Amino acid sequence: MRQFSWPVRVYIEDTDSGKIVYYVNYLKFMERARTELLRSLGHGKAAVSETGQLMVVANAEVKYLSPARLDDELIVTTAIERSARTFLLFKQSVVRDGDVLCEGVIKVGCVNQDTMKPTQIPMPIRVSVNNWLQAETDGKML
Amino acid sequence: MRQFSWPVRVYIEDTDSGKIVYYVNYLKFMERARTELLRSLGHGKAAVSETGQLMVVANAEVKYLSPARLDDELIVTTAIERSARTFLLFKQSVVRDGDVLCEGVIKVGCVNQDTMKPTQIPMPIRVSVNNWLQAETDGKML
Amino acid sequence: MRQFSWPVRVYIEDTDSGKIVYYVNYLKFMERARTELLRSLGHGKAAVSETGQLMVVANAEVKYLSPARLDDELIVTTAIERSARTFLLFKQSVVRDGDVLCEGVIKVGCVNQDTMKPTQIPMPIRVSVNNWLQAETDGKML
Amino acid sequence: MRQFSWPVRVYIEDTDSGKIVYYVNYLKFMERARTELLRSLGHGKAAVSETGQLMVVANAEVKYLSPARLDDELIVTTAIERSARTFLLFKQSVVRDGDVLCEGVIKVGCVNQDTMKPTQIPMPIRVSVNNWLQAETDGKML
Repeated sequence: MRQFSWPVRVYIEDTDSGKIVYYVNYLKFMERARTELLRSLGHGKAAVSETGQLMVVANAEVKYLSPARLDDELIVTTAIERSARTFLLFKQSVVRDGDVLCEGVIKVGCVNQDTMKPTQIPMPIRVSVNNWLQAETDGKML
Repeated sequence: MRQFSWPVRVYIEDTDSGKIVYYVNYLKFMERARTELLRSLGHGKAAVSETGQLMVVANAEVKYLSPARLDDELIVTTAIERSARTFLLFKQSVVRDGDVLCEGVIKVGCVNQDTMKPTQIPMPIRVSVNNWLQAETDGKML
Repeated sequence: MRQFSWPVRVYIEDTDSGKIVYYVNYLKFMERARTELLRSLGHGKAAVSETGQLMVVANAEVKYLSPARLDDELIVTTAIERSARTFLLFKQSVVRDGDVLCEGVIKVGCVNQDTMKPTQIPMPIRVSVNNWLQAETDGKML
Repeated sequence: MRQFSWPVRVYIEDTDSGKIVYYVNYLKFMERARTELLRSLGHGKAAVSETGQLMVVANAEVKYLSPARLDDELIVTTAIERSARTFLLFKQSVVRDGDVLCEGVIKVGCVNQDTMKPTQIPMPIRVSVNNWLQAETDGKML
């Protein structure tokens, strides 16, 4: 499956008094990577569009395997397992030196900002994602 | 199943530019409630004990149903689905005026702070949790 | 000077790997207290009003004297040093067992949400604040 | 005065329901830049050293001029106004397209992690900082 990689550095703001990364923050790291994947496909501000749509997380499953620590250089890998009319299903990992620290399956949907009712994923995003999924070679580099 | 309830007020720090609570922050609300449940059982500082143990989230599954907004008064309900030798399984909801906004199943384990190797849940915590689970009447009030 | 007090409990989310409260988070604690002071005067959602005004921090000076730690019960005290047409000047402290851990002077102004141009503090807020400042006895309790 | 520049991208995690960057988060951006300046001088993990010292913020003065928004690309500039035996005084700005959005003067000291008593800035850091301040040409690039 095609993967997008995004680097994240751990700062003191990300840690907690267990001297490890506060587990909630891996979800932020994963979101940054999803955002950058969409940006690399030409879709900035995908999360809060000017046309009144929000991309929102509908579901998140996260498995914590090993902790990251202050100053670590992490790589967040992002694959899109499924691109549907109303959602995108992301499979993501946070990796340090080849070791997977944290895995997430994140389902992202789309809602109208005023009504909060579900809408379709905007067609331009779907087209870009599907093109990206179909491209055979991965030209993405860190 | 016995439930513990903990109130959470939404502040501006909790929101994002979608004008809703940033979805990652529900995990913070849920952790506050787990912390207060353990505190109500006599176990302060359970997350980072002075005996060198950390209680860490091993797994989190979160389902987002409807968003909370600035100033909302939320209730986080917490039940313990399973109390095992090496983990506690929490089932939690974030509720506003009777509507469930977000549901989580959170598995919490214990590790040695130096080695990060899994250890058993400290016996005093297990005893308190099991007593709480067995007590028939729920004297807990907001 | 009249004071408003608001309690804050330190959770793991508030700490960093120095095993102390991450210094940035005292600003969140102070904002919660300002929010609750305004709410106690009848002004919920003061930060982001439905009439299109934002109350925004224009200036913050914070002095860190001693660190808070996980599980600490803190009191945030809030006084209003000056209530002007275009700003409120708050003087705040974060206190633990009578010891001042952190002091802040926070100047809050008001802007139009669309233009981000400065506007006056909404008159209902000014009236309430001035009444509160003039009231002789402090009926506020934790 | 010599300056170090560090880029920061605004993610949804950084914003609030005013649809701007939550003002507290500029302090995080500034800290990332200070961390990267020290790292560029060979001092990783300066905030929480393995020799038991913490670099801590003693004082912060922040002036907010104009808000950043979702997706903005910011530059944090960092100068060191004074390098003393017991503190470093940083002068920092958050800039977007040449416009200064936020200015901070941050005094960082050093404490012993166990006693929290002030100590001197570690000599290796002082030497590097002083060398950096004295170097005539700025070889730093984004």
